[in-house]
Amino acid sequence: MKVVTTIKEVRENVKQWKKEGQTVGFVPTMGYLHEGHGSLITKARENNDKVVVSIFVNPMQFGPTEDLDSYPRDLEKDSKYCESLGVDLIFHPEPSEMYHDDFSSYVDMSVLTEELCGLSRPVHFRGVCTVVNKLFNIVQPDRAYFGEKDAQQLAIIKHMVQDLNMDIEVVGCPIIREEDGLAKSSRNTYLSPEERKAALVLSQTINLAKQLIADGEKDADVLVAKMKENIEKEPLAKIDYVKAVNGLTMQQQKEIKAPMLIAMAVYIGKTRLIDNTILH
Amino acid sequence: MKVVTTIKEVRENVKQWKKEGQTVGFVPTMGYLHEGHGSLITKARENNDKVVVSIFVNPMQFGPTEDLDSYPRDLEKDSKYCESLGVDLIFHPEPSEMYHDDFSSYVDMSVLTEELCGLSRPVHFRGVCTVVNKLFNIVQPDRAYFGEKDAQQLAIIKHMVQDLNMDIEVVGCPIIREEDGLAKSSRNTYLSPEERKAALVLSQTINLAKQLIADGEKDADVLVAKMKENIEKEPLAKIDYVKAVNGLTMQQQKEIKAPMLIAMAVYIGKTRLIDNTILH
Repeated sequence: MKVVTTIKEVRENVKQWKKEGQTVGFVPTMGYLHEGHGSLITKARENNDKVVVSIFVNPMQFGPTEDLDSYPRDLEKDSKYCESLGVDLIFHPEPSEMYHDDFSSYVDMSVLTEELCGLSRPVHFRGVCTVVNKLFNIVQPDRAYFGEKDAQQLAIIKHMVQDLNMDIEVVGCPIIREEDGLAKSSRNTYLSPEERKAALVLSQTINLAKQLIADGEKDADVLVAKMKENIEKEPLAKIDYVKAVNGLTMQQQKEIKAPMLIAMAVYIGKTRLIDNTILH
Repeated sequence: MKVVTTIKEVRENVKQWKKEGQTVGFVPTMGYLHEGHGSLITKARENNDKVVVSIFVNPMQFGPTEDLDSYPRDLEKDSKYCESLGVDLIFHPEPSEMYHDDFSSYVDMSVLTEELCGLSRPVHFRGVCTVVNKLFNIVQPDRAYFGEKDAQQLAIIKHMVQDLNMDIEVVGCPIIREEDGLAKSSRNTYLSPEERKAALVLSQTINLAKQLIADGEKDADVLVAKMKENIEKEPLAKIDYVKAVNGLTMQQQKEIKAPMLIAMAVYIGKTRLIDNTILH
């Protein structure tokens, strides 16, 4: 496994592979890898000749008051984990390699980005679209892998790839959870032991939603109200949003029917966590 | 020479060429081709194994009051001209092939696009960046060719390609002029015989600017004032802008020194024409 820091090195490696007719799977990450990332890498490993993982905490997708500086980083641990999963190349650029001084282009979307996480993180998806667009142009993969935990991000990336005719297959992979149900996230490391317990309210509320739907609930407003009520029982939790939206357009939808995304963002103390379930 | 209308057909052809190790040169156009386009195609023909020309009047780069509907079109003539210049593939999509119903992504830039033509055409460069980004992803050329007549567009495309790490060489080609000096443009066809004569004020004013600079003029404001004065002598001309800007940043610059773009947009009757000279 190679670890490279420049765009030029990525291109040289990928060009050689393409010349040999090899397919490339790509997993873009912000590092501090957990089994959620691991599941994406494993899927990429199964379906491609070569696997590239990028580890880049992208400044452009963080708002001015967000956790850019404190976002957890551990390249050594990440490298070992990638190596154990059969990754061929890690791309780990400095911010200056990705954004030169007079950088001024961006990729954005006039729908999808304004709902859910876009409301509380107004520059977030513009930063995500721009960096993923750049990474796709650098790596030129055949397939790229994203977790369904970031369901809105996944929908947005799929839409960008379609709209801009990028010749890449975007593959979504299911949420990976801790044994007690908490969705795996690099941000879980921020939680105190007490907050870690309180954070279970997210997955428990997702389970409640699934149960209500299985029991025949058809009204999205009723579902969301019951979910909020459940979260509010937890004193350390503060709701950012709980929403039931169309799974393709991210627009609110009265009736519960597929394709639908039932998603939430909840602060546990100062840590903002997300969870969701998708009706396919 | 093939003429295709779908993205799929372009991809199939280009993939086959790439598999054979052939290089691809690309000339994106809005059709109604003249010798300006011809010079780009000829350059592409010289330096690449295969040449693709797109002919697409892109709705996204026209403002609501602009000449989208009346923009001149003549596919038959364009096809013959392309064939005579050795083009391998024309891509001539319908708008619905390029913009499906829920299209919502865009590519834009926070500088370069706001000056000069961006002031009077506020959505123009967003439309240009987006469609060129799409076309680059569809054609995946090694080199793409643009005219220096649209100097701001050329600077913007170069910047976009650099910022978004598109693996494409953007080549600028000099302005091609009629015998009497008028810069070749598909929009020249709008001009009445009287307007056609009046339109010479653009190239004459560019020549005046070149002469003033050759004579030692160093002050951009003085230069621009003298250029405006010259244009105002022509009763059918109405100035949109005359500016002397840094050739890379498009920001106004007091001192005349390279890299510099001296550019103008002038209405002759209802027809908006542009011309410029670049100090390299």
